Amino acid sequence: MPDLVRAADARAVMAVPGLHWHDNGQATLSGPLLGYMTRLDEAILRGATGLDAVALRPSPCLPPGVPERCGYLDSFPHHATMATPMASGAARNSEGRALLTPAACYHVYPLLEGARLVVPAVYTIRATCFRHEECFLPLERQWAFTMREIVCVGSNEDVARFLETTRATVSGWCQMLGIRVAARQATDPFFDPKSSPGWLMQRLLPLKTELVSGDLAISSFNAHQSYFGDIFDIQQGGCSAWTGCVAFGLERWLLALIRQHGREPGRWPAPEALI
Amino acid sequence: MPDLVRAADARAVMAVPGLHWHDNGQATLSGPLLGYMTRLDEAILRGATGLDAVALRPSPCLPPGVPERCGYLDSFPHHATMATPMASGAARNSEGRALLTPAACYHVYPLLEGARLVVPAVYTIRATCFRHEECFLPLERQWAFTMREIVCVGSNEDVARFLETTRATVSGWCQMLGIRVAARQATDPFFDPKSSPGWLMQRLLPLKTELVSGDLAISSFNAHQSYFGDIFDIQQGGCSAWTGCVAFGLERWLLALIRQHGREPGRWPAPEALI
Repeated sequence: MPDLVRAADARAVMAVPGLHWHDNGQATLSGPLLGYMTRLDEAILRGATGLDAVALRPSPCLPPGVPERCGYLDSFPHHATMATPMASGAARNSEGRALLTPAACYHVYPLLEGARLVVPAVYTIRATCFRHEECFLPLERQWAFTMREIVCVGSNEDVARFLETTRATVSGWCQMLGIRVAARQATDPFFDPKSSPGWLMQRLLPLKTELVSGDLAISSFNAHQSYFGDIFDIQQGGCSAWTGCVAFGLERWLLALIRQHGREPGRWPAPEALI
Repeated sequence: MPDLVRAADARAVMAVPGLHWHDNGQATLSGPLLGYMTRLDEAILRGATGLDAVALRPSPCLPPGVPERCGYLDSFPHHATMATPMASGAARNSEGRALLTPAACYHVYPLLEGARLVVPAVYTIRATCFRHEECFLPLERQWAFTMREIVCVGSNEDVARFLETTRATVSGWCQMLGIRVAARQATDPFFDPKSSPGWLMQRLLPLKTELVSGDLAISSFNAHQSYFGDIFDIQQGGCSAWTGCVAFGLERWLLALIRQHGREPGRWPAPEALI
């Protein structure tokens, strides 16, 4: 989208009823817009429950040690946001700080540390995620936003089947909601080749597919191979488990619906139709 | 509770199924424990809807300027937690930082800035709140916890009636859930007289009532008089509006239920009975 069109679009989005945009790249939601987001998330949750997913409500920060073990701070320092207590000099050193969740699925793998799985494990998790940026756009590129994920941990075949199934299901959901999407192979938009080791690129990059509405990625399907299984010693059938996840950027789904159907959620297709 | 008993209690709580306690004072919830918290919150939300409350989903940080205008950083610096981007030197100065929500109701008043109300306005809001402490206890004193609030903005009579009504209603809920509670006049436990100006003490302190189960405060009823109405120029009938709120510490409700009924949420009274 050209810059001028984007700026006009952002101004129009800011005027959507129920969106209260703050100068720091965060938003408060209310009214029918919030009501629709809640119902959409509940529909996705029911879809996840149909996959026998266990629901998690994560702590707002990643548990101690997890960012380091996953290499997050080396790979994505420009996006990282720390929760920093003001007291006791904690602001000036790393003591007492914690990384605010950058992606929901990071909470799943440490819970399974050391597990020897017999059947694949599926989780669903909704998290407020923080990713810092140079500039922000309402509902599209926020410092803090809402991510629902469904995560599969199992054999490579389990994960491949999970990603294939969910990709078909979610494409169908977009059709039912009247959101025109295309699938595109993606590099992780949050990946900075300058600061990230090559092995991470090789292991994480080639395996990401996004559903895009216009140029807006609203869901992504991610195969991590054995990256997290290796780090957290999770095995199935004597091998490191593979992991994969499907992520929904809920505010972006709202934006795609606004662009497609206008700013009245009462006129959008009901999300209850999804399941 | 004596220290040794408290430590034994904390160890027992850490072993409750569905509670994943992290060393940084935060918790991840899953399974029946999470399921019960969700249902309890939905019951409170229905109660709020019965009061014609407008639901808000707040940004995770307070909007820029709000902590300063409310005097939060002067009064409670020892509890404050900032969201600090790692990039661009923001960790070393205040630029780009934002205060992670310390109490849900702070999001309501700036939305009403300059309003001239004809009838009282009621909001309900659920927020992940951050309060830093010297030490933490699972479900009881967490760095991050979940607060549901119902907030009334109107005349002094409106707010007094709101607090009286909700206090009776919530006491009845405790009875229905088999939680023995007592009402106690409270000073704000998050208030440090050493660092806070006297006027704040005078205006905020005498007007707080808590429902306590044993020594655990699970809900509080707070009258702020015209404190926020003055700051944000909110008026009703030509006078500064008064505000009041009832707050539910959802993890503490779970802890009270665990202590009263044991660690199996399936054996607790159903929260659907509340409304």
